Amino acid sequence: MRYGFGIDLGGTTVKLAFFEEDGTCLDKWEIPTVKEGSGEQILPDIAASVLSYLESHSIPKENVLGIGIGVPGAVDSKGIVFSCINLGWGRKDVPKELGELTGLPVACGNDATMAALGECWQGAGAENMVFVTLGTGVGGGIVCDGKIIAGVHGAGGEIGHITLVPEETIPCNCGKCGCAEQYLSATGIVRLAKEALVLPHPASALDSGELTAKAVFDAGRDKDPVALQVLDRYFDMMGRFLAILCCVTDPEVIVLGGGVSKAGQMLIDGALEPMEKYAFAPCRTTRLAIATLGNDAGIYGTFQLALQNYG
Amino acid sequence: MRYGFGIDLGGTTVKLAFFEEDGTCLDKWEIPTVKEGSGEQILPDIAASVLSYLESHSIPKENVLGIGIGVPGAVDSKGIVFSCINLGWGRKDVPKELGELTGLPVACGNDATMAALGECWQGAGAENMVFVTLGTGVGGGIVCDGKIIAGVHGAGGEIGHITLVPEETIPCNCGKCGCAEQYLSATGIVRLAKEALVLPHPASALDSGELTAKAVFDAGRDKDPVALQVLDRYFDMMGRFLAILCCVTDPEVIVLGGGVSKAGQMLIDGALEPMEKYAFAPCRTTRLAIATLGNDAGIYGTFQLALQNYG
Repeated sequence: MRYGFGIDLGGTTVKLAFFEEDGTCLDKWEIPTVKEGSGEQILPDIAASVLSYLESHSIPKENVLGIGIGVPGAVDSKGIVFSCINLGWGRKDVPKELGELTGLPVACGNDATMAALGECWQGAGAENMVFVTLGTGVGGGIVCDGKIIAGVHGAGGEIGHITLVPEETIPCNCGKCGCAEQYLSATGIVRLAKEALVLPHPASALDSGELTAKAVFDAGRDKDPVALQVLDRYFDMMGRFLAILCCVTDPEVIVLGGGVSKAGQMLIDGALEPMEKYAFAPCRTTRLAIATLGNDAGIYGTFQLALQNYG
Repeated sequence: MRYGFGIDLGGTTVKLAFFEEDGTCLDKWEIPTVKEGSGEQILPDIAASVLSYLESHSIPKENVLGIGIGVPGAVDSKGIVFSCINLGWGRKDVPKELGELTGLPVACGNDATMAALGECWQGAGAENMVFVTLGTGVGGGIVCDGKIIAGVHGAGGEIGHITLVPEETIPCNCGKCGCAEQYLSATGIVRLAKEALVLPHPASALDSGELTAKAVFDAGRDKDPVALQVLDRYFDMMGRFLAILCCVTDPEVIVLGGGVSKAGQMLIDGALEPMEKYAFAPCRTTRLAIATLGNDAGIYGTFQLALQNYG
């Protein structure tokens, strides 16, 4: 039996998992992400955790096919990180560095793309799919015939930065204006709600309490008029956004993940009609699904990447 | 030496070409596309032309690796045509039918996608590219790692139907409103010019003569104020459109083909600045190039598809 590691490197913690070749997850654990000093300790910490796991379980390196690791930044198809602002990294050859530290083969990808691959392999996805993460920002991953599209600049699947509103004057975190992320993320929903609440409006549950994406969906479920108006606008933009994706790679299914996807069927039902309106006819039947692996998508995807490269 | 056919099936003529395995084109010829009777004669006509070519050149079928054929409609990754309105075809298993008629292996793809593969292989493209055809309509093809993205419904690369203007009320040929094709095609440029000419405007070369995409570019080259205003709007939309494509598959190069691409460097220069404005930062350096194979892109691409499948 051969084994491998799937590693999801985040801004706060590193999730590590140890797999059998057939995809059985044998162990999961976390270590903190130490970002001091331009994040120079991160890869040595990961290597130490990997090597001590193997030693404590008496598993020889020859039985380990490799390591897959996902990183929150632009990563090209060779696993080279372009930059990773959250971690303090500039350009970094992660496969080479982590490979030298562990003596194991290493494959590296973008974290959202790795989550896409995880959902493709073990979750709600399919061999041809688009994964959309709706969290603080909007990220994603494109999978075609079971393989990720990393992109020449590591920006494959950076769909949150599709310009949806060219007239927008407020900048996105990325610097340009009108990105999908500015409307479709959890932060985006709150922003749309704030815009509705400064205008004259009927009494609303959203007038009091903390204004969150969840609060908007909850109020919408209770037919709150302001929430419904906000969600109408949200779903229209979401539908237009999803329809754009269909015209490019024409996936079998679009999988929605991230915090906003906890709205579940309400999100799918709301987005489906506008998506059909904006979709090119042959793609009108493209399925929408909610991600099923949650925070584990990354470790499954990264181990799958290791399998594809070294299995 | 082994050989193969590349065939580009259009609404008026069928272009056929005979290749050596190394990509040398040995012969090119055309036959008319007979559309009567729901296009039932088309594949038998093609088969007859292929077989008579082999017979007249005394080439045994064992020396032919296969046939690639491009079709103006939605074609999935197995080569099944969903529908092809121009030819009167509904669903059609072209690889099976043409395979039985010729006794040769057949691979089939969408015509614009095949042109993309041709430009990738022998033209202005690269292993990771997007091809955009700017003709009467707007079509395209996505190539990742040298392979086409056909799409689950055969709509991979149907980028002309990305909604660019959600407020649009005039329908596109596809039935929905605000498609990229309505603005970026040759027809789209003429439409933008007509919109400018009905408003009060300074004297313009476009006030007289036939209003064509070429006339607009020519007048723009002569600094005609109306043409420049039309082209400003055109390039802005083009830049936004190209930047969307960069966020999805993040190609090395976007190749522009079709009639409008005859504007050449003026088109590239005009689109580049708006594209940079709307592009996600890592993609700002994505190259734009003019297609170099012209009408031969399809025969090169289809032969390459045959090579990938049977070479």
